[in-house]
Amino acid sequence: MTPTAWISLTTDYGLGDGFVAACHGVIARLAPAVRVIDVTHLVAPADVRRGAAVLAQTVPFLPYGVHVGVVDPGVGTARRGVALVTPGGLLVGPDNGLLLPAAAALGGVTEAVELANPDWLAPQVSPTFHGRDVFAPVAARLALGATAVEAGPAVDPTTLVRLPEPVLRREADGFAAEVLTVDHFGNVQLAAGAGLLDALPGEPRVAGRPAVRGRTFGDAPHGALVLYVDSAGLVAVAVNRGRAVDLLGVTPGDLVRVTGTGG
Amino acid sequence: MTPTAWISLTTDYGLGDGFVAACHGVIARLAPAVRVIDVTHLVAPADVRRGAAVLAQTVPFLPYGVHVGVVDPGVGTARRGVALVTPGGLLVGPDNGLLLPAAAALGGVTEAVELANPDWLAPQVSPTFHGRDVFAPVAARLALGATAVEAGPAVDPTTLVRLPEPVLRREADGFAAEVLTVDHFGNVQLAAGAGLLDALPGEPRVAGRPAVRGRTFGDAPHGALVLYVDSAGLVAVAVNRGRAVDLLGVTPGDLVRVTGTGG
Amino acid sequence: MTPTAWISLTTDYGLGDGFVAACHGVIARLAPAVRVIDVTHLVAPADVRRGAAVLAQTVPFLPYGVHVGVVDPGVGTARRGVALVTPGGLLVGPDNGLLLPAAAALGGVTEAVELANPDWLAPQVSPTFHGRDVFAPVAARLALGATAVEAGPAVDPTTLVRLPEPVLRREADGFAAEVLTVDHFGNVQLAAGAGLLDALPGEPRVAGRPAVRGRTFGDAPHGALVLYVDSAGLVAVAVNRGRAVDLLGVTPGDLVRVTGTGG
Repeated sequence: MTPTAWISLTTDYGLGDGFVAACHGVIARLAPAVRVIDVTHLVAPADVRRGAAVLAQTVPFLPYGVHVGVVDPGVGTARRGVALVTPGGLLVGPDNGLLLPAAAALGGVTEAVELANPDWLAPQVSPTFHGRDVFAPVAARLALGATAVEAGPAVDPTTLVRLPEPVLRREADGFAAEVLTVDHFGNVQLAAGAGLLDALPGEPRVAGRPAVRGRTFGDAPHGALVLYVDSAGLVAVAVNRGRAVDLLGVTPGDLVRVTGTGG
Repeated sequence: MTPTAWISLTTDYGLGDGFVAACHGVIARLAPAVRVIDVTHLVAPADVRRGAAVLAQTVPFLPYGVHVGVVDPGVGTARRGVALVTPGGLLVGPDNGLLLPAAAALGGVTEAVELANPDWLAPQVSPTFHGRDVFAPVAARLALGATAVEAGPAVDPTTLVRLPEPVLRREADGFAAEVLTVDHFGNVQLAAGAGLLDALPGEPRVAGRPAVRGRTFGDAPHGALVLYVDSAGLVAVAVNRGRAVDLLGVTPGDLVRVTGTGG
Repeated sequence: MTPTAWISLTTDYGLGDGFVAACHGVIARLAPAVRVIDVTHLVAPADVRRGAAVLAQTVPFLPYGVHVGVVDPGVGTARRGVALVTPGGLLVGPDNGLLLPAAAALGGVTEAVELANPDWLAPQVSPTFHGRDVFAPVAARLALGATAVEAGPAVDPTTLVRLPEPVLRREADGFAAEVLTVDHFGNVQLAAGAGLLDALPGEPRVAGRPAVRGRTFGDAPHGALVLYVDSAGLVAVAVNRGRAVDLLGVTPGDLVRVTGTGG
């Protein structure tokens, strides 16, 4: 085992049941020295896109380790459970698109396996709780230093299920980008890299509303829209001391037009 | 001290105040090497039955250790604080029924004591915060290897306060069972063991509505009721990609009839 | 490094994004042996007073360590980031009043520095996420044993931003005190020390309503107001098996009159 081994957990289990603790418990029993970081358990139920975005934007800041993602409406069906190896860490979860953006953030998939070795799973696998009975014990064994190939047969990475790419469309006076996430503060993150903001001519507008180009929230007057590069390196919209999501009335997946005026 | 000692916490303290952290802090000061697993702190205030169910269904998956439960509307009154010894671990909390289902899941109470040794408690015990001043320091000392008998005088286990057994009634064409819990996904867990589902003749109905007998959610069409054995081994009702609790309009304590038709 | 070093985190980041985990991750990468206690991440966005109260009331029960507070609507603006040294531990966060009540609870500020050493921060500091890029790495270094003076230039403690003192007014028949916090149970904590309750003549009234003077909730009949000294040593108002905040219709900052009658 490495001196300090880490596992992270990202799920839609919520915090009101014992589901998260059962996963912690399974890890603690198999690998008591491993430390666990909870990324979030408040992904909306079955919202694979949201889980994928949060996981991908968080793993670059986590220690090297095994990152478990469980947003898994197909639990217990024919969908595969997989472990992905990347230069920056391992990922474990369902093969439904949840893990691939994080894998890309960690350097790309170099090896993938299907979780099929029964010795690595709970003696009885509940068809509705693979977090506890499949993904947690697999993660514990990987954190202890076992190799992915022991977990099951190799999977061709090109066969892994992928989420559709978020929409980003360059336009004459700016761009239209899909809302990728909305955070706790109501800040609206767009599927658009920082360069697009730099390239925007003149005074910006967001969905037709005037906005301030800023580095941080306080660069705009109270209540005004600010367009900035967020902490994940993406273009985002905030309202200083307010909630951009409420002002814009958008939801993840919606398209937002960002334009320059009079540039 | 054991090489790795564990404490778990299950409370109705919520996550918005510093109450949970104060318990963590007391444990960390007394027993810094002990690791803590939070089961949940979102039991509805004073809902002893809910806390008991979550704790009992989670402890089998936690490492051997001291499990603290605090759902304690009678805090500071004459109700006793107790520590229970079982083959599978120790339990600490109020004597109000909260701990006994978990004790049963861990093999049954072999010894019980009342928490009366003032040397084990905070120097000044707040009458409204026994989690911090009584249960956390007691758990820390037990996790460090002290024996329960040092915590206070023996209690006859038959005098421990018990919650009423949930209702389960076999009927000619099936059974009626109390709703034990509703989870984050809206799945409705009944106080009925898996065998009752196996014994059900023909096509099942739940509260008069047709349901699919399945192993997991995806065995039913989207929006349809599925009757399955959940990850705690109990009969449960889900809606594939939906919320059974909303469809059925039930709440814990309600009776749900499950019947076979044309069997 | 001390044998066990501790960091606590108190923020308004919420639990639904990866923000808290990113802070944990930064700490884990720099100081893997350090243990982290989450105080709360559910301070209402930008509610510095609430964050200050929760932090100050919790730190006395945490182990010696570095306490990070991030409720920081001015993130990325000219407001300073600071580290404060006290006899009971260190505090790290924005200079906006958040940390000073906790510093007082830990014995008072003996040294203060501005976080200006770029070697201590993330290579690229996001102007909107100082928790991850400034405060977490500084806390990790302090927990590893570095001295505050290495973090940046000394700050005159008298120049630190202070929140206004909460209102407390003695009156002929009692006192009027600001609501300091409302907890998860709806208990209303007043900015008034225990002595004021002892000095109250006769039967008490809270906002004109009759109340029972008690040690704990169960000292009042179900549904009745109870006036007690809470676990932080302050006068508080509860409703046995109910929510005082709903009965009184108050919010933090409101004044509540507590009077004795016929004393």
